[in-house]
Amino acid sequence: MSKVTSDMAISLDGFAAGPNQSLELPFGEGVLHAAVSRWMFEQPEANAEQIAAITAAKAYVMGRNMFGPGRGEWDLEWTGWWGDDPPYHAPVFVLTHHPRAALEMQGGTTFHFVTEGIEAALARAREAAGDGDVSIAGGAATVNQYLAAGLIDELRLHIVPVVLGEGERLLEGVGRLELEPLEVSGNALVTHAAYRPIR
Amino acid sequence: MSKVTSDMAISLDGFAAGPNQSLELPFGEGVLHAAVSRWMFEQPEANAEQIAAITAAKAYVMGRNMFGPGRGEWDLEWTGWWGDDPPYHAPVFVLTHHPRAALEMQGGTTFHFVTEGIEAALARAREAAGDGDVSIAGGAATVNQYLAAGLIDELRLHIVPVVLGEGERLLEGVGRLELEPLEVSGNALVTHAAYRPIR
Repeated sequence: MSKVTSDMAISLDGFAAGPNQSLELPFGEGVLHAAVSRWMFEQPEANAEQIAAITAAKAYVMGRNMFGPGRGEWDLEWTGWWGDDPPYHAPVFVLTHHPRAALEMQGGTTFHFVTEGIEAALARAREAAGDGDVSIAGGAATVNQYLAAGLIDELRLHIVPVVLGEGERLLEGVGRLELEPLEVSGNALVTHAAYRPIR
Repeated sequence: MSKVTSDMAISLDGFAAGPNQSLELPFGEGVLHAAVSRWMFEQPEANAEQIAAITAAKAYVMGRNMFGPGRGEWDLEWTGWWGDDPPYHAPVFVLTHHPRAALEMQGGTTFHFVTEGIEAALARAREAAGDGDVSIAGGAATVNQYLAAGLIDELRLHIVPVVLGEGERLLEGVGRLELEPLEVSGNALVTHAAYRPIR
């Protein structure tokens, strides 16, 4: 059965990004980027199952800030952070207030720009995914919106062992919520903890 | 080797207590108290190792608010939340600005009131514990002070699957910190995750 998932790397104190995110520092200041990179790239074998799950969805939804920096009208030269062959290999629906033509990349990734809000973007992603899962890819503000709306079936946290102290929090503004723990595992670089929000 | 531990139950969004703590609601408003009670009292077998570890220390330190409600001079009728035979069975050093004579309870628990600050309280607890561990029992503000001072060797989180949205946060005001994950396990009611702060 197709479900809506979200994989988020957060610090132990719940931040998905440090302060002062920028083009050069998409995770913001602080050690979060280094900590996230370590578990994904230094120990891929130890985290193989979780890494595979992150890219198993058949369609993605992401916020504008995750696709690229800036606000307002699009800079049409900007085609995302990921180069010519992004790691999604599937349709990606980008939430924005500014229309833009779909952007077909190499390797099966196509970015679609959706101006009708989170439910519309999810509906389009579901349709594109067919029997596959849809992943809400981030950032934190976007995942929080979907959590608040009760639209996420499986929240998979990848908790890196750092305390940041400031930045953009996951799980903020989502109201009171109960969840069912699904899985927990970990190693020296990361703790994986998956939850199903209870409606 | 003797170490300084702290066991804290927190919500998935990092709160050790909900808002508006009071005599009737020591965990504050919200579902935190119920969620904490569930894993400790509904499934003690599934969490036996962690529950045993919480009370394995040979001396404890706690903040004034954990010992009892109110501020200012002591109400000498108040002897803690725990009845005549508190679960500590060891010396407990209570941080306070107001001196009070030591209070000997049944079962080996004696409350000592320390006005000289967190380092003095820890020194007295270490001496009392001998070769045993010292546990910083709470609340969140007290544990945060000890974390910020670099005085905790092992932080054992018991993460209950609820999002509270407001209350008193653990890991707040402790600055940037890196930690080493020690253990992770869990079940349907709680995720246990232990960390060693790296100095």
